[in-house]
Amino acid sequence: MALKSFIDVHPDSHFPIQNLPYGAFKTQPSTELPRLAVAIGDYALDLSEIAKAGLFNGPLLTGSDCFLQPTLNKFLAMGRPAWKEARKTLQKLLSSTEPTLRDDTVLRQKALLPTSKVEMVLPMEIGDYTDFFSSMHHAKNCGTIFVGPETPIPPNWFHLPIAYHGRASSIVISGTDIIRPRGQGRPTGNSPPYFGPSLKLDFELEMAAVVGPGNELGKAIDVNEAADHIFGVVLMNDWSARDVQAWEYVPLGPFLGKSFGTTISPWIVTLDALEPFACNAPKQDPSPPPYLAEKISKNYDIALEVQIKPSGQKDSSVVTRSNLKNLYWTLTQQLAHHTINGCNLRPGDLLGTGTISGPEPDSLGCLLELTWNGQKPLSLNGTARKFLEDGDEVIFTGCCKGSGYNVGFGTCRGKVAPPRD
Amino acid sequence: MALKSFIDVHPDSHFPIQNLPYGAFKTQPSTELPRLAVAIGDYALDLSEIAKAGLFNGPLLTGSDCFLQPTLNKFLAMGRPAWKEARKTLQKLLSSTEPTLRDDTVLRQKALLPTSKVEMVLPMEIGDYTDFFSSMHHAKNCGTIFVGPETPIPPNWFHLPIAYHGRASSIVISGTDIIRPRGQGRPTGNSPPYFGPSLKLDFELEMAAVVGPGNELGKAIDVNEAADHIFGVVLMNDWSARDVQAWEYVPLGPFLGKSFGTTISPWIVTLDALEPFACNAPKQDPSPPPYLAEKISKNYDIALEVQIKPSGQKDSSVVTRSNLKNLYWTLTQQLAHHTINGCNLRPGDLLGTGTISGPEPDSLGCLLELTWNGQKPLSLNGTARKFLEDGDEVIFTGCCKGSGYNVGFGTCRGKVAPPRD
Repeated sequence: MALKSFIDVHPDSHFPIQNLPYGAFKTQPSTELPRLAVAIGDYALDLSEIAKAGLFNGPLLTGSDCFLQPTLNKFLAMGRPAWKEARKTLQKLLSSTEPTLRDDTVLRQKALLPTSKVEMVLPMEIGDYTDFFSSMHHAKNCGTIFVGPETPIPPNWFHLPIAYHGRASSIVISGTDIIRPRGQGRPTGNSPPYFGPSLKLDFELEMAAVVGPGNELGKAIDVNEAADHIFGVVLMNDWSARDVQAWEYVPLGPFLGKSFGTTISPWIVTLDALEPFACNAPKQDPSPPPYLAEKISKNYDIALEVQIKPSGQKDSSVVTRSNLKNLYWTLTQQLAHHTINGCNLRPGDLLGTGTISGPEPDSLGCLLELTWNGQKPLSLNGTARKFLEDGDEVIFTGCCKGSGYNVGFGTCRGKVAPPRD
Repeated sequence: MALKSFIDVHPDSHFPIQNLPYGAFKTQPSTELPRLAVAIGDYALDLSEIAKAGLFNGPLLTGSDCFLQPTLNKFLAMGRPAWKEARKTLQKLLSSTEPTLRDDTVLRQKALLPTSKVEMVLPMEIGDYTDFFSSMHHAKNCGTIFVGPETPIPPNWFHLPIAYHGRASSIVISGTDIIRPRGQGRPTGNSPPYFGPSLKLDFELEMAAVVGPGNELGKAIDVNEAADHIFGVVLMNDWSARDVQAWEYVPLGPFLGKSFGTTISPWIVTLDALEPFACNAPKQDPSPPPYLAEKISKNYDIALEVQIKPSGQKDSSVVTRSNLKNLYWTLTQQLAHHTINGCNLRPGDLLGTGTISGPEPDSLGCLLELTWNGQKPLSLNGTARKFLEDGDEVIFTGCCKGSGYNVGFGTCRGKVAPPRD
């Protein structure tokens, strides 16, 4: 029989006792420091209250102040044994058969806050953010659009997980408006380059891994130990200005076309919660070099969906359905590759997967692909979109379906605001 | 008559009272937090002692704890009025005619530490590190080597300061060994890609601006106000693995070819100290778009030199002499461009200039250019180098020559260590 909480959790909820994703919140209105929590049904369980009550009583967490911090970084640095201990403690504490919290009215009142009453904030300090390019379908479509159909995928792509360094300062929590960027676009004929608000604002459907302990400079992480350095996963929208990107990216890659905003979902779903949804990664041909060859090569079966709620409309329309398992390069290969040159990862670093496009036309992860660079507008409930317009809201969801329960990510959302003067 | 300190400063010193660059140090051996300092001659003046003695008595700094912090970030956030006040206070305090510190033996003993007795550490937390590509000579040479001589400089280059996001975690202080990275190199013929220690390890002669207050997300910084967001400048070696870079960089730019280590010099020379060495920036043709058009377009006349001390040799050889004034895009244009899309800069962010190559063959800023990708080895005092070998030490210096004094940067150095198992 499935594990069950004394808290009433709707069967459609993303956050049953099997999930327990981690986040950080403030009570509204509040100037106090954020507090750490796990989600359970419609509640945030305040981990500082649980810690202060002495209920983290396993050998690694007893007496630790990791849950009294305003970010998860200290807990992330502690590694998988501490993460497993916390999960075990919290699953027991929240189970229907355990009286400690269930029957303590005072502690329940202090520690269980309706998520509708709190404001979620970034759960970790992100020292560095890296974005990969690990969906073959996305690589092929982008290459066809930008370079041409002859050799859309560059020859290095099948040998290593290509990536670029992203901008950490502009990562924001779900719900934050995204201000349309200004920038230069490619000149036509002999005119000077276009300058003004981006005319090709896009979303990118991604997920991102949150790094745990990491490594010291000069010491690579073995691909078969890489999973111990991934705490969990979030949804991520890597907003992109396609006109800016297309003009600036040769020869050093994306810069201002991406750095104006990146949205992540507030709850980090742990690898431990995702484990029941692990599936085989695709066979890689050519086989990867030894430092990327995994004994067990895993993806996760996470159904992803993007909706757009167009400006002025009440309803949103589904524009794509994809799945994390569409990735060619696994999360662990990405992480091991990142460190093979000795580059150090730190707790809280974020590794984006790149746009997760599937093989079908309705599984493409961005408007660039869905509208083929604006040539085939999408119809959204009677209104057409080539790219995003001011006031449009983009909403990602992600969910794993278990037998009788979900392990979900909630939503990752952001609305496009006009440029500021 | 020139300002003079009561501390005996050798005429060749980089650190007379006209300079007063900022850094952070620990006493050796020590587990205590770093303390902030300015350099004066052969001494570090401990700013925490000056602050505790109540000697920062101007309106902005009285009572502030900014010099009791382990990093400069809080002071950086305070902006140019506070920086000017601190400079005025310190120049007065250190001048030969001012008795306050000069005649206080106890305070002098506490606050003035020989730099030979302290260990310099990174003076700021670096949230994000960006690297530009602002020398036309470097862009032309790299383009000729990698792409071919027909159109070596991409068409966007003259319209915007091209840049990429770098890796913040692997920025290290001068004197830190650089471990040779492993990685993939381009395959030859039908073989699989090379994998192993980089065979083309290079230095890149750069400088980097340290960001002051910065901007909030969505709000660009005007190019004519950009100087108020630059606290100062350091020397920077953007170590590069050319074989890794050449294979990985299409289409998303440099990644592991750069992220294994970046060295900065320990003392940040302020824009205020550099002001006497300002010079006209080169005329830009085509003229830049309005958001990059400066009322006054400044470079700084900073003579730069690179020496290599080959493994096993006692002496180093000068391999290049360049100058910051060789840059096409100014520091302020770089900063304004960075924010035009709304991207937020934070105090302590680092903006690298890119390799500073001049027009002459002996003013090129990296071995890629100096040896033309290994085709013309350099002769170093009897030994030849195409790229760096294990044990080689690379030493940058930078100095502005005033009349009777220098405003210098000291050195930025690092030795190549073999890969770790």
